[in-house]
Amino acid sequence: QDLIQPLMDRLAANATVGATPAGGLCRLALTDADRDARDQLVRWMRELDLQVQVDGIGNIFGTRPGRRHLPPVMTGSHLDTVATGGRLDGQYGVMAGLEVVRWLNARGLQTERPLVVAAFTNEEGVRFQPDMMGSLVHAGGLPLAQALDTLGTDGTRLGDELRRIGYAGALPCGQIVPHAFIELHIEQGPVMEAEGVDIGAVADLQGISWQEFTFIGQSNHAGTTPMHLRRDAGQGAAALAVAVRALAQRHGAPLVATVGALQLQPNLINVIPARATLTVDLRHTDEATLQRAEAELADLVQQLAAQERLEVQTRRLARFEPVHFDLRLVRLIQDSARHRGWKVRTMTSGAGHDAQMMARQCPAAMIFVPSVAGLSHNPREHTAPEDLARGAAVLLDVLLALAEE
Amino acid sequence: QDLIQPLMDRLAANATVGATPAGGLCRLALTDADRDARDQLVRWMRELDLQVQVDGIGNIFGTRPGRRHLPPVMTGSHLDTVATGGRLDGQYGVMAGLEVVRWLNARGLQTERPLVVAAFTNEEGVRFQPDMMGSLVHAGGLPLAQALDTLGTDGTRLGDELRRIGYAGALPCGQIVPHAFIELHIEQGPVMEAEGVDIGAVADLQGISWQEFTFIGQSNHAGTTPMHLRRDAGQGAAALAVAVRALAQRHGAPLVATVGALQLQPNLINVIPARATLTVDLRHTDEATLQRAEAELADLVQQLAAQERLEVQTRRLARFEPVHFDLRLVRLIQDSARHRGWKVRTMTSGAGHDAQMMARQCPAAMIFVPSVAGLSHNPREHTAPEDLARGAAVLLDVLLALAEE
Ligand SMILES: NC(=O)NCCC(=O)O
Ligand SMILES: NC(=O)NCCC(=O)O
Repeated sequence: QDLIQPLMDRLAANATVGATPAGGLCRLALTDADRDARDQLVRWMRELDLQVQVDGIGNIFGTRPGRRHLPPVMTGSHLDTVATGGRLDGQYGVMAGLEVVRWLNARGLQTERPLVVAAFTNEEGVRFQPDMMGSLVHAGGLPLAQALDTLGTDGTRLGDELRRIGYAGALPCGQIVPHAFIELHIEQGPVMEAEGVDIGAVADLQGISWQEFTFIGQSNHAGTTPMHLRRDAGQGAAALAVAVRALAQRHGAPLVATVGALQLQPNLINVIPARATLTVDLRHTDEATLQRAEAELADLVQQLAAQERLEVQTRRLARFEPVHFDLRLVRLIQDSARHRGWKVRTMTSGAGHDAQMMARQCPAAMIFVPSVAGLSHNPREHTAPEDLARGAAVLLDVLLALAEE
Repeated sequence: QDLIQPLMDRLAANATVGATPAGGLCRLALTDADRDARDQLVRWMRELDLQVQVDGIGNIFGTRPGRRHLPPVMTGSHLDTVATGGRLDGQYGVMAGLEVVRWLNARGLQTERPLVVAAFTNEEGVRFQPDMMGSLVHAGGLPLAQALDTLGTDGTRLGDELRRIGYAGALPCGQIVPHAFIELHIEQGPVMEAEGVDIGAVADLQGISWQEFTFIGQSNHAGTTPMHLRRDAGQGAAALAVAVRALAQRHGAPLVATVGALQLQPNLINVIPARATLTVDLRHTDEATLQRAEAELADLVQQLAAQERLEVQTRRLARFEPVHFDLRLVRLIQDSARHRGWKVRTMTSGAGHDAQMMARQCPAAMIFVPSVAGLSHNPREHTAPEDLARGAAVLLDVLLALAEE
């Protein structure tokens, strides 16, 4: 109740940075828009008397001191978006964290443990792979030097871009080891809306496999080259995209498989494509099944390449095993929601999140709120204000409980 | 014999403009590289005492006066290339025309009819559709004003680009009506090499159908959207590319079908594509069969769109019926080759050519020479110097015979 209007105002102010004509956000990691959003966040953190620290991969931490020098309770998410992002993915968790702090400040409440609001670098992984990079480095899953050397899809080096926007910070990565981590996020899928659920208590998160395949054939004239003499890289890619869909259907839910990006070269109407590059995103809650799907995919790639006499190159862009969140934290979320009279459901997360990396370092869990029509990574991503406020209220309850432990 | 070295030198000099690291040419129509090649051609024409005229669509004509003011005999081709072009496609026919003039000049020979060497604008149709545009406008098949209003794949207007490079000429389009038109060209396919043929006498040319299809679905999150709720535009495009290949196989030769260009939007690894645009190039020697294939394609597009609940938009980019060349000219070509002791074969052209448009205005035919490995629209496009010289010799014979009529 006390949270709804300030939270909506904060989200609206945040959404002025990197706004797109379609009503969404475009804030690819470490671009100027990302910097502007970070600058605004740091200003807001200081206004709330948080102590701001930036680490070597650009993660931003705002600390509210506790009564004692104990490991803090941390919440947060990310400020970066995909190119066709909405106004909530990542943003909601960070802004709600700020509103919890404002709520405590307004009441002059001090907690036993410090509270930290975090914004992690490059969660989306669209410009630089892998995704969840800032939290991964924080949790010790990727050496900082290797992360800084990542080359972007636009050819830039991550470390250079980080320095350029002024967010290569001095705090050693991973220094802040939380007592617990809670991430509040929109569901980004259709399940909660379909079932009329108010709050999702996220108990686990799918394994994610990202690969890129490049087929290499021979460019030639579209009018003069008989079909049987062609080595058409585009046919390899198209056939793989169709096969990836069939693979998903063969396995059935919860396997999801997506070809999101595909480029042909030279990409001309009357030239047989010489090269075709495409990405495959495979996800499953069970590691063994995900590995089986990956093996089938590798076979398909070889078969289709042989069929069209193409060479093929494979690049792994990201690979994360399924994650199980901390059951005690999941129960705290359920208890808060039930106590407030809201319908709660245990959930699996289909998307990757910073919480999955933080779970390597400390007990972690996530709170979900419904996404209208299940839309996300789309400018029309939306959640009703009351749902956003419910999520923030549960976050407040859980953070307060944890901060007194 | 007298033609081989000067011709090779001329081709080498011509290939310095728009040269690519891979050893080919990139001279998209009306770019700076196209202008530079035109400037060089005009210089060379003047050095050979040709009278240079440029028409409203930028076609360049160099005239060598005859003894009488009769309709001229014309030869020529084009200077523009695809982005991954070789050094011969189009260039060979223009440069050989210049060498025929040089040969006549060196011997002080005058012909009864004038001789014209032509370079037509935008034959490739890669940047601006349709292809063979300059010759099409010349032959009255496309109004000049409409051609000038064509929007390029880069968003530019053809008329603006033509003025920018200084080739919006004063000669009224179509004013020069030839007595006959002969185009010398590389085969761009594998048939002549496979059969050990020296000279192709081209008797007909396939019909060409170029269409662009745009599938419109809904972008959404790759991790959270169940397979059955997806409206994946990329799946529509990939399935169509695979179906286009199957359609070609069902019909069998001589039908050829190519998906050369394909773009996804937003083209991100973890976002289901909202839009997918692809081109389909269909060709057949028989108009009725080509129409049948087009109808089948239209059905496929509707089926695949319905299957994935996609909208679809269709754009026709070019459509030309099969062309039959002038039998008397074809026989002149055969006679010259046989007389010189070379193996000649009657051919169908798989590629579109300016001669097919000129055939609307006057008797026309084409001379082909073999392409090594059938490669074209590829930097490795190649023809042996002796083969290039043979083609030029037949061109000389045929032009001389026609110019005395
Ligand atoms: N939450 C979210 O959209 N994360 C991006 C990584 C992914 O594709 O799951
Ligand atoms: N000769 C040639 O490559 N023409 C371009 C038009 C076509 O695609 O056939």
